[in-house]
Order: sequence, then structure tokens, then C-alpha cells
Amino acid sequence: MKIKNLFFKKNQNIFINDILNSLKLKKNKLKNIKINDITDIKNAKKNDISFYNSNKYLNLLKKTKAKYIIVNEENFNIVKKYSTPLIVDNVLKSVANVTLLFYPNSLDDSSDLFVSSSDKYKYKSVKFGKNTLVGKNVKIGRKTIIGHNTIIESNVVIGKNCNIGNNVVIKKTIIGNNVMILDSSIIGKKGFGFFPGIKKNLRYPHVGMVIIGDNVEVGCNNTIDRGSLSNTIIGNNTFIDNQVHIAHNVNIGKNCIITAQVGFAGSATIGNKVLIGGQAGISGHLKIGNNVQIGGGSGVIKNIPDNTRVMGYPAKDIRKFIKDNNR
Amino acid sequence: MKIKNLFFKKNQNIFINDILNSLKLKKNKLKNIKINDITDIKNAKKNDISFYNSNKYLNLLKKTKAKYIIVNEENFNIVKKYSTPLIVDNVLKSVANVTLLFYPNSLDDSSDLFVSSSDKYKYKSVKFGKNTLVGKNVKIGRKTIIGHNTIIESNVVIGKNCNIGNNVVIKKTIIGNNVMILDSSIIGKKGFGFFPGIKKNLRYPHVGMVIIGDNVEVGCNNTIDRGSLSNTIIGNNTFIDNQVHIAHNVNIGKNCIITAQVGFAGSATIGNKVLIGGQAGISGHLKIGNNVQIGGGSGVIKNIPDNTRVMGYPAKDIRKFIKDNNR
Amino acid sequence: MKIKNLFFKKNQNIFINDILNSLKLKKNKLKNIKINDITDIKNAKKNDISFYNSNKYLNLLKKTKAKYIIVNEENFNIVKKYSTPLIVDNVLKSVANVTLLFYPNSLDDSSDLFVSSSDKYKYKSVKFGKNTLVGKNVKIGRKTIIGHNTIIESNVVIGKNCNIGNNVVIKKTIIGNNVMILDSSIIGKKGFGFFPGIKKNLRYPHVGMVIIGDNVEVGCNNTIDRGSLSNTIIGNNTFIDNQVHIAHNVNIGKNCIITAQVGFAGSATIGNKVLIGGQAGISGHLKIGNNVQIGGGSGVIKNIPDNTRVMGYPAKDIRKFIKDNNR
Repeated sequence: MKIKNLFFKKNQNIFINDILNSLKLKKNKLKNIKINDITDIKNAKKNDISFYNSNKYLNLLKKTKAKYIIVNEENFNIVKKYSTPLIVDNVLKSVANVTLLFYPNSLDDSSDLFVSSSDKYKYKSVKFGKNTLVGKNVKIGRKTIIGHNTIIESNVVIGKNCNIGNNVVIKKTIIGNNVMILDSSIIGKKGFGFFPGIKKNLRYPHVGMVIIGDNVEVGCNNTIDRGSLSNTIIGNNTFIDNQVHIAHNVNIGKNCIITAQVGFAGSATIGNKVLIGGQAGISGHLKIGNNVQIGGGSGVIKNIPDNTRVMGYPAKDIRKFIKDNNR
Repeated sequence: MKIKNLFFKKNQNIFINDILNSLKLKKNKLKNIKINDITDIKNAKKNDISFYNSNKYLNLLKKTKAKYIIVNEENFNIVKKYSTPLIVDNVLKSVANVTLLFYPNSLDDSSDLFVSSSDKYKYKSVKFGKNTLVGKNVKIGRKTIIGHNTIIESNVVIGKNCNIGNNVVIKKTIIGNNVMILDSSIIGKKGFGFFPGIKKNLRYPHVGMVIIGDNVEVGCNNTIDRGSLSNTIIGNNTFIDNQVHIAHNVNIGKNCIITAQVGFAGSATIGNKVLIGGQAGISGHLKIGNNVQIGGGSGVIKNIPDNTRVMGYPAKDIRKFIKDNNR
Repeated sequence: MKIKNLFFKKNQNIFINDILNSLKLKKNKLKNIKINDITDIKNAKKNDISFYNSNKYLNLLKKTKAKYIIVNEENFNIVKKYSTPLIVDNVLKSVANVTLLFYPNSLDDSSDLFVSSSDKYKYKSVKFGKNTLVGKNVKIGRKTIIGHNTIIESNVVIGKNCNIGNNVVIKKTIIGNNVMILDSSIIGKKGFGFFPGIKKNLRYPHVGMVIIGDNVEVGCNNTIDRGSLSNTIIGNNTFIDNQVHIAHNVNIGKNCIITAQVGFAGSATIGNKVLIGGQAGISGHLKIGNNVQIGGGSGVIKNIPDNTRVMGYPAKDIRKFIKDNNR
């Protein structure tokens, strides 16, 4: 089930010719139909535009419903079997441009200045600390406690029986029930994505959310960035210790245990019941299976299959790590 | 000298049959005597209950004053020489249950909502920043400065001539004199201890404190978790840089220098005059001797004797590290 | 161009005999001339005093304008060719003493208690969040946004079109235009420098600033410490991800990309267009060239020449790293 994104104002009047224009492509003979949204190839619906950038995603391409797909010359022939390709030089830059067409405010990551003191609001059986700031249309479930100085930006959803600490900042995020978020964590800011320029880097729009499941614990001083086109997801009953960094589009499964100072680079996918020791790092776009155990301090730079124990930098099978270090 | 724990309301009427009942043990013929407290095997007094979980602690067992000791079948015969064993399947879960009998509120780690603006209080020669929040029965010594937005929860003790930064959160903590705690550090929250469950993890109660000696410096964005049954301790004149994580029950000696982004897992014991380079990690339950030097980025997974220099991942003697890397 | 330091009150009446006295040197036959400042050997002007501590800086010594140079016996003969040496046992301790003569308040790193609510000030076209605190003589450029609970201490300069997040603390810092500083970062606190003592460590005065160029992005939960005698510098258009630590006197060039949880030890110098992967660590006093790429998790302990790719702990040429790990 796709959770509705409540956080970005979408331009409802984008036609294919607006998109072709922004990509500097010819408007030629295409019928100027209305395009509904831009999203990833997996979640795209019938009147959406998407993109294809790597043959890792071929299986998703085969099943995609996207009407148009932004692609470079190299992958043109594959894409045209399944959808209508739009050829561009730089896929990600083109996706950024089209995203900005749909979501013209998506590069504005300023502090939400429309928050007010929580005293102004009436939430049933919710307890607030001092100096708490709450945005517009925020939903907070019964028996949830919000600590001092915490900022909940507009449209955020927090379930019931949650316990949010002090000095926390939450934006563009949907949180389940019985979730604990400890002091000074920052949830939902934009990811670290941009195109390097000589004078000025060009920021990548982030229109994804953070979605946190039921019974999750997020420790102190965590940073969990929201997704770019898809979402950053923390599965049910996953517990995260202090000072952990979770980049944009990371997808963590259920029942994971992630100890302090671990870092996840963008778009890593982590299975269920994964146990990660302190200070380990997971590179971007990797797939870590279910029931994996990653030793403290490991640097994971390859996919890891289910039911495996790894350790080391770079991470390898734990038996090999022990053997190599006994030489 | 044991410092009195002021932070948890203890149930004063626990008898051994209440404990046996909570552990699902037979009440059989035991006289129903009153039990005073649950604590670790080292600090237990005559009418306390404790636990024994590893033969690492055999020397402490031999000297323990604990009246009852929670133990599993495997260690039953050792324990019965020195105290009265209570056999259980899972020692730590049983300790958690008994701890909750004595301290029924010990799982509540919410923000202290009984704090007030520091304007309400009169502390002699203490300077407060703006928006500072102070709990009930907080003690603050003369000439101490407390920065803006900082939260000092109920019953915390801070010595004289201390300098507490901005956006700091301090709970369940006793701080000596001339201590500096820099911006955004979070001291005294519960440790990352729990029993994994399928639907819901079961949190371990943390009734220990953080105890910080005289002349200590704690940098910015540190997280120092309080102990579970024993305390987390930072010795006199130890200096800690930014973004350091110190887990529950860690005991750091005097005159240590701990540079940025170091992480300590639970129950590590560090000697005096230990020097730790940036980003090093120390595994749980290890013993690091006096005058040890640990190179930056090291991953320490074994005990380290006094007067040793180590480096590497896993950490080894510095000469071996240099030799291995010159091959 | 040297940027003027606005943050420390300088004693304008220091004569060479005051300095000799504080260093416990004989006042002998020297004429008692006025000394203007203490600074590093590169930036020292005609009537300044400086110091020389390592032959790494011989080229700078040859060109220095400093009238006096604090030095130990070992380097006396080199220094006397270029300036007037003052021989001491411990160069850095002597520099600390003389710095305190010029800047008697430089060890006070307390929270600035002279800040006021931003409501008190009138900044043209600047937007402030709630509970924002601003010190005296702060300059903020047009169209800059300052988030909730953020503290800008006295004399700080922030350019135009900047976007400062929530819960940020900025002191002793000069920031260019179009700079983004995300939530909970702490910019400009003193570095982690001191002389270990048995009872009490002796803190090193930090009279440097942090200087942040145009178009820079600083992520969430960063700590950027100010310099001791020289400055900590972030060059134009450099982007920094979350949870990065930058120690005192670090100098980062232009167009760098520094991903999450990276740590820089003191006085490291980083070239332009340097790319550093997550969790890498850079040791103190190193020189990293232009166009260098450092892999995630690397531990850099040697200088790195221009246009090099390194990875590993310790970091080595990337080809060697790959080869060594395929054995």
C-alpha cells in the first residue's frame, strides 16, 4: 500500500509538452496529454512519468505502468519494449528538472516558520513539554508525549502512545504507534543529493517522506533524511541506538537492531532481523538480506545474502575475518 | 563510597515471596523476609538480591554480601557456595522483572514534564541563559553557568564552577566541580538494552545513574547513557571531544583523553590516563588498562593490558600494525 | 586577504618585557618595544610575535615578518637567521601564556549570556523562527532565514540569502552568502586543545575564528571548531553532510564533497574538489591535495598528493586496496 504524501504541493497541470519543453526535447507529434506525477519505476501509475538508469532495475521495468520513462541513449532499446522512452543526456538532472515542474517548492528546505506554540492546539490526551512548536495540520495520536523545545512541522503524522524527546525536529514524516524518538534527533530533512557545479552546486529535489513503523525506537542525535522520489522507511519494531545516520531512500526492514554511530548511505536496502554493530557503515544502493549480522566497525561495500554473518573493512564472512586476523 | 541514587522511586515493601512469585518460582519453605534492593554483585548489601551471569565475575561472587543471587542452572553449583541461588531460565530477563518490582517507574524515560523556567528558582551565584528549564530538587553549585535552552531534570546534582552549554539535556546524573559540558550533549538517558521480541521488544529497566567527576570536559553532541543496575562513570579530569558515544555501565578512569567520534559499547571499563584517537570503537564488556594508547580509527575487540599502544581493526600492538602495513 | 577577527578583546598595551616576564626570561638589554599581536608565522606582521615548532614550516619562517619568534633550543639556530628567537622549554605552553597576555578572556567559552530575543532587533528582510536568540553587533544579510531556537552569538557575521536551521549555535564565525547550515550544528566553539595535568588539564586559548565561504552547505549535527591562533576555513561551494566533525585550524578548499560522519583532526589541510566518503577520518596536520578521492571508512594517516584515489585503513592507493582485498 502506498502511503499518500501530504507534504509537497503538486502542480496539477503538467502536460507532456511541458515536460518535453523542460527537457529541451522536440514536442513533435505527441498528443499533449496530462501527466499526473513523477515517481520511481516501481510505484509509477498509468499516467506517470518515471526514469530508468541501471539494469539492476530491469525486473521492475518489465512490470512498470509508467507512460513515459526518462532514459539515456544506452538504455533506450530496453526501455522502448515496455514504455515510451524520452532520451536525455543526463538522466538524474532531467529527473530533477521534471520533479521541479511538478513540485516547484521542493528545493525549499527552510525551517517551517508557520509553526506555533503547542498551547494553541487542542490534542486529546497528548502531553506537551515547554516551548514545543507545532505546524499546521499535524496529527498526533492519544497518549503521545512530546518533549521540550521539540518542533513538529506541518502535516506530520504521529501515532498514539508515542514518546518524542526534547529538541527533536520532525518534518515530512509519518510515524506509527508506540514509537520512541529520543532527544535531538532530526527526522525528514532533505538528503545529501546534488549535481556538483563550478560556482554553485545544483540541489536535487527531495519530495519523498520518512515513514517510521510501529514500535520503533530512534535514539538520540540520529539524522534520518527523507527520500528523493521514493521514501526512507524504518520497519516495525526496529530499534536504533544513538548518533546513527540514515541517508535518503534507505529502506530498513522489521525487527532490526542498529547500534550506535552506524551510517547508511543513500538507497541501501536492509532486510528483516538484521543486527548491525556500532560504527559500521553501509554503502549506497546495497541490498542486505534477512537475518544478517554485521560486526561493529565493518565497512560493507557489497550485497550480503540472507542469514550471513560478516565483519571487516571491507566486510567479509566472519569466519574469513577471524582466520585472516589470526595469521 | 557508593553515591546515593536519588532518581528512582523504590518500592520499600518487597519480600522474597514477591520476588519468587514474579520469577514463577515456588514459594516453598522460605521465610518471607524483606529484600532491600536489587543491585550488581559487587555493590550488593546484606539484604539485597543480585545476579550471576558469567565466571568473569567469580572473584566478586566470592566476596558478595547478596542474600539471594539469580542464576541459571549452569552456574548453580558455584553460586550456592557463597549465597542462596534462585534458578531461572533467563538471568537477564529475570533481573529485569525483579528490577521492575523494586522500581515500577523505571521504564518511563519520557521527558521530565515537571521542569520549570529557571526564573522560578533562586540559586546563589548561578547564571542561567534564556529558556532554561530546571526540574525539582536540582542542586547547582556556586558560580556555575547554564546555557540557553538547556534542560536539567529533577534531582540532578551539578557542582560549583561548572559550565554547561546550550541545548544540553541532563537527567539522572551527578556532576562534580569545575566540569564543562558543551552544547547539545545528552547525559543520562537510558541505555540501549532490551530483549528482542517478534512484535515488540521488551525494554530493560535502567535504574543506574551517570556520575561525572571533577574537572571533566564533555564536548558537543556527546551521548552518555546511564547505567542499568550499576552506573556509568567518567573519572576526574578526563576530557572528551565532540560526537562521542558512551553506552550504559561504561566506566572511564581519570585523566583520560578521548578524541572526537569515539564510541564505547556497554559495560566497557577504561583505566586511567588512557588516550583514544578519533573514531575508535571499544566493544562491550572489555577491560582497557591504565596508560593505554589506542590509535584513531581502531576497533578494539579484546582486553588491553596496562601501558600498551594499540592500533588497527581489529586493534593490535602498534608495532605489529606498522609492520603489517609495510608489507 | 586576512579577515579581521572581531571576537576577542585584545590587550593593546603589551610590551616585549611583559612577554619576557610571562615566559620567565630575562628582560636584559632589549629595548621595551610595543608588540602588536601573537599569530602564526605565516600571518605575522612587523610588530607581532610568533612561534616555530617544526621544520615543516621552514619555508614560512624564511618569509616571516614576525619580530620575535618563540622557539626551543633545538631550532634556535635556524630561527635566528630570520628573526629574533626567544628560547623556551615548551613552545606551545609559552604560546598559550603569551596568547593569554594579549587575550585575557580567551579561555572563557561560556554561552554568550548577552543575547536577546530576535524580536528586539530590526534586520531588513531577515526572517526569524521562534525563540531565536541574537547577540550584540551581529550582522545578517538580506533574505536570510534563521530557524527556531537558534543562537547567534555576538559579532557573528552571516551573509545574504543564507538558510540557517533550527537549534543551531553559531559563535566566533563569519559566514558568506547563500550558505545553508542545517539543524543542530554547532559552529565556532573552542577546539580540543590543552596540556594534560595531573589534577587539572590546562586549556589552550582559541582566538581563531571559523570562516565559511559562499554557497557552502553544512549538514545537521556538525561540529566545526574554531582555530587556536589561525582560523578554521571552509572554502566556497563545499558541501558537508550530517554528523561531520571538523577540528580546530582545519582548512578545507573549494568544491569539496564531504559525506556523513567524516572526522577531521586538528590543522588538516584539504585541497579543492576533494571527495570524501562516509565515516572516513583524516589525521591531524596532514595535507590532502586537490582532486583527491578518499573512500568511505578510510583512515588517512599520510599526506595525499593531487589527483589521487585512496581507500583503506590505513588509506592507500585504491588499486592497491582492491588488489590486497582480492587475495
